[in-house]
Amino acid sequence: MSKLVIVGTVAFDAIETPFGRTDKILGGAATYISLAASPFEVDSAIISVVGGDFPSEYLQMLKTKGSDISGLEVVKNGKTFFWSGKYHYDMNSRDTLVTELNVLADFKPVVPESYKDAEVVMLGNLHPGVQLSVIEQMTSPKLVMLDTMNFWMDNAWDELMVVIRKVNVLVINDEEARQLTGEYSLVMAALKIMEMGPKFVVIKKGEHGALLFDENDVFFAPAMPLKAVFDPTGAGDTFAGGFTGYLAKTGDYSFANMKNAIINGSAMASFCVEKFGTEGLVDLERSDLNKRLIQFKNLTQFDIELA
Amino acid sequence: MSKLVIVGTVAFDAIETPFGRTDKILGGAATYISLAASPFEVDSAIISVVGGDFPSEYLQMLKTKGSDISGLEVVKNGKTFFWSGKYHYDMNSRDTLVTELNVLADFKPVVPESYKDAEVVMLGNLHPGVQLSVIEQMTSPKLVMLDTMNFWMDNAWDELMVVIRKVNVLVINDEEARQLTGEYSLVMAALKIMEMGPKFVVIKKGEHGALLFDENDVFFAPAMPLKAVFDPTGAGDTFAGGFTGYLAKTGDYSFANMKNAIINGSAMASFCVEKFGTEGLVDLERSDLNKRLIQFKNLTQFDIELA
Repeated sequence: MSKLVIVGTVAFDAIETPFGRTDKILGGAATYISLAASPFEVDSAIISVVGGDFPSEYLQMLKTKGSDISGLEVVKNGKTFFWSGKYHYDMNSRDTLVTELNVLADFKPVVPESYKDAEVVMLGNLHPGVQLSVIEQMTSPKLVMLDTMNFWMDNAWDELMVVIRKVNVLVINDEEARQLTGEYSLVMAALKIMEMGPKFVVIKKGEHGALLFDENDVFFAPAMPLKAVFDPTGAGDTFAGGFTGYLAKTGDYSFANMKNAIINGSAMASFCVEKFGTEGLVDLERSDLNKRLIQFKNLTQFDIELA
Repeated sequence: MSKLVIVGTVAFDAIETPFGRTDKILGGAATYISLAASPFEVDSAIISVVGGDFPSEYLQMLKTKGSDISGLEVVKNGKTFFWSGKYHYDMNSRDTLVTELNVLADFKPVVPESYKDAEVVMLGNLHPGVQLSVIEQMTSPKLVMLDTMNFWMDNAWDELMVVIRKVNVLVINDEEARQLTGEYSLVMAALKIMEMGPKFVVIKKGEHGALLFDENDVFFAPAMPLKAVFDPTGAGDTFAGGFTGYLAKTGDYSFANMKNAIINGSAMASFCVEKFGTEGLVDLERSDLNKRLIQFKNLTQFDIELA
């Protein structure tokens, strides 16, 4: 088993969907990633920052779920990053209502000594300069996975290109892949991204599943068809957490094993969207995941005979 | 092996995509369905109508590809159905520029005596009254599959409900499934459609693949990721042709075998969209299909171990 370093926001979210709304609840990319890695029982650490307003019971919960939080800085006289968004009826589009960076504005990530030798690094969506700083603190990572978004393409292109060149896996959604490469076809987009540095590309398509590419192969995992998607917040981060959690657990970074990692990530994401915020992940048992993995097998596996 | 009856338009299409445009070329639902069933070498018949302007070499080609055309009426002094459409850059939306029903306006389908005992019937998108007339001519069909569209929901709801009640499989796209049921979730939509009569529901999501439902199970097949989608015209019909062609070939109408049928349909559709009109299907060899089926295996199959 390998160590897993998780970088990203730990935040307050306020969410409105057609099915309900929340006040400030626990959110943030690193939160979802760490909760999604939890069932794999890897040795993981969260590198992030919160303010003095962040409840200690949330910190305790993250520890209980298996994350080292010695790299989670608490700025006593600062406020925690806050995001508020509203989803439309189709759940595929959302409006950001509020973004308050707060303590995130001056975030300088520090990887704890005992995690500098981690093999797997999951860089959640953040300023590419922050992501780069974490890579530079690692001694010998075997698999660095980067998430990013259109905001950094618009506002920090050069720094984004530097960090993309240094990672093994880029995870990105379909529209962002198109913006990053100027290619409409996701196959063409993935090929162009691999020319930028990453050996593997994961393209997330939300309710339409996810694609994994390397230079020779492509693999597809659907999203689990659900009776209702309650709240998509954090689904992409949860997917990334399941993906990297599984890879850290198995220590096998081959394309063949990444297929399994994608399925585990998709399974974890399916729990995330069934409830508000992190609710679907906090109480999840390993046995729940196993049942859903069997559902994914039934959903996708066939036994065709060639004529 | 079972006989396959194919009902639908045989038409002229004029197509404009971001990659080019055609004059009047061979098109129509029954054309695509029959070409897609061809690699399975089933005993199939096209029930349709064309005008005196329909080239005899097209009729000859359909025969050469294995379809009985004794039920394909030629109205000597009539004109063939004509459709013209333009695709937008994303290829997921299109505008219909021209629809000339011509001989289709008075179409009375007649199933040849020798095909009344066919086990498999593929009812391509047409007026539900025409579809019903074909069902009533069959003596003992085992599997009747129906395609329809929003136009008939808007203009022939009652007749559509009558025919839906009589079929085993409804194939429909995602937006139409939502319109038909008032449910946004495709899982909920499929459950409601099964209450209308069909034991199986296939929901087509275009480039995002297709879902197969019965009351207990769900199966998903992705679309093959391609470097370029050249022309989506006929992809849905090609999918249906591969699906029913495979089922007629194997004579096994179980959910488990429908999984294989969906994959065969998806494979055939992937050839369709790679070229203009029917070009990708006319010259297709069985060995091409076999190669693509292996690609579908590689695209979707994984071997997960449960912890």
